[in-house]
Amino acid sequence: MRIETLFTPGEITESAVKDKLVVVIDVLRACTTIAFAMSRGCERIIPVASVEAAMNLAASLEKKMTLLGGEREGKRIDGFDLGNSPLEYTTDVVKGKAVVLATTNGTRAISMSQGAKEILVASFVNMASVVERAAGMTEETLTVVCAGESSKFSMEDAVCAGMLIERLGESKEVELNDGGQAARLLYLQNQNSIADLLKECEHGRYLDSLGFAKDLDICSRVDSLSILPVVKEGRIVKPKRTKRK
Amino acid sequence: MRIETLFTPGEITESAVKDKLVVVIDVLRACTTIAFAMSRGCERIIPVASVEAAMNLAASLEKKMTLLGGEREGKRIDGFDLGNSPLEYTTDVVKGKAVVLATTNGTRAISMSQGAKEILVASFVNMASVVERAAGMTEETLTVVCAGESSKFSMEDAVCAGMLIERLGESKEVELNDGGQAARLLYLQNQNSIADLLKECEHGRYLDSLGFAKDLDICSRVDSLSILPVVKEGRIVKPKRTKRK
Repeated sequence: MRIETLFTPGEITESAVKDKLVVVIDVLRACTTIAFAMSRGCERIIPVASVEAAMNLAASLEKKMTLLGGEREGKRIDGFDLGNSPLEYTTDVVKGKAVVLATTNGTRAISMSQGAKEILVASFVNMASVVERAAGMTEETLTVVCAGESSKFSMEDAVCAGMLIERLGESKEVELNDGGQAARLLYLQNQNSIADLLKECEHGRYLDSLGFAKDLDICSRVDSLSILPVVKEGRIVKPKRTKRK
Repeated sequence: MRIETLFTPGEITESAVKDKLVVVIDVLRACTTIAFAMSRGCERIIPVASVEAAMNLAASLEKKMTLLGGEREGKRIDGFDLGNSPLEYTTDVVKGKAVVLATTNGTRAISMSQGAKEILVASFVNMASVVERAAGMTEETLTVVCAGESSKFSMEDAVCAGMLIERLGESKEVELNDGGQAARLLYLQNQNSIADLLKECEHGRYLDSLGFAKDLDICSRVDSLSILPVVKEGRIVKPKRTKRK
């Protein structure tokens, strides 16, 4: 199988995503938060690219059953019910609800991948489920989109992409672009220190400065959730539960 | 000093380049070719972002003294005097001439860095000269822009950025963004096999398939030219000759 790894949404071309199986990675924190929310019984998540889109969409949905979530500069958006910390998305809060989610990088990357056949939402916490699905794919090409940070390369997403590539390479022959080669090398250098990596990378240090140190720990727990959020027609519903490894 | 490394021109923000010292890296091949042309006595090079801009500009310059150079998909543009191979830019051809140069990645990255105080044109062949200039800089931040390949990450430019970072780190304390950390790690993994790297990276294999294997060898010769092409007000003139290491 061919794996096309893109380090920023700015590298997305129509041919890279159209009718393709796409994995979107945003370790800190949108994709981790989505996995948490779905594993806590959230009914559906609608990722959107902007605050405006989130407000407009939420206004058209049943208020009692809908939560607005998201961040700008890591902080909860004014007037929103939830920020972007996985710890906020508890069973009490999200069970049976729809969440309209607007984040700077992750949900924007998902929006920019529209046109894909299917988008898998990936981070360290649900990597085993992502690998299982990708290993069983029949398509020729897997496109891996790292959300990055404010349109720039982010180390944690690249290393997470490298973990996916390395694990897929254990069971299949994989052909990589330059991005994938680099991601794999960066993963091999960091594979035994994921928690430290999240504390030391740029966005991790920023989140720590905002008081989100606990989030970094949560986001570093590889394979801790057996869930595979899939975006179809712009929303994430009924995630497939996969066997826990 | 702070070094901001960007892997693609798409990561450039106004604040990253405005009034900054910027290094643009395009190993295969524009920045290597520019170094060759200037070292062979080329009078000036005007890098432009598009074929149209090149044709319009050339039409306004003295025909006898002006050459049109550049490529699309690695191949010489129809009607142009020169392609983008350093081997074409011999003393016989370029001495005393102006070259209007349009390439897919390198000259585009230079154009997108306009607004910078000064742009240094870098590749493996003139790395010592670039390091010498950057080590003596008084500005707080150095921005390193990798040209990449068709708006995507390219391994050879990232490794070249890593070489610059590693060498600067030998004499100065350097503070790196995630891109710089990754570039440094990728360089350390590849530092003893630059020629192989250029043969194995995506764009190297593509150029080889077009018959440019010799270019890959030329482009891999670290510190082979003691020249520092600098873009000021949109053109490269009178390059500073630095001592050969």
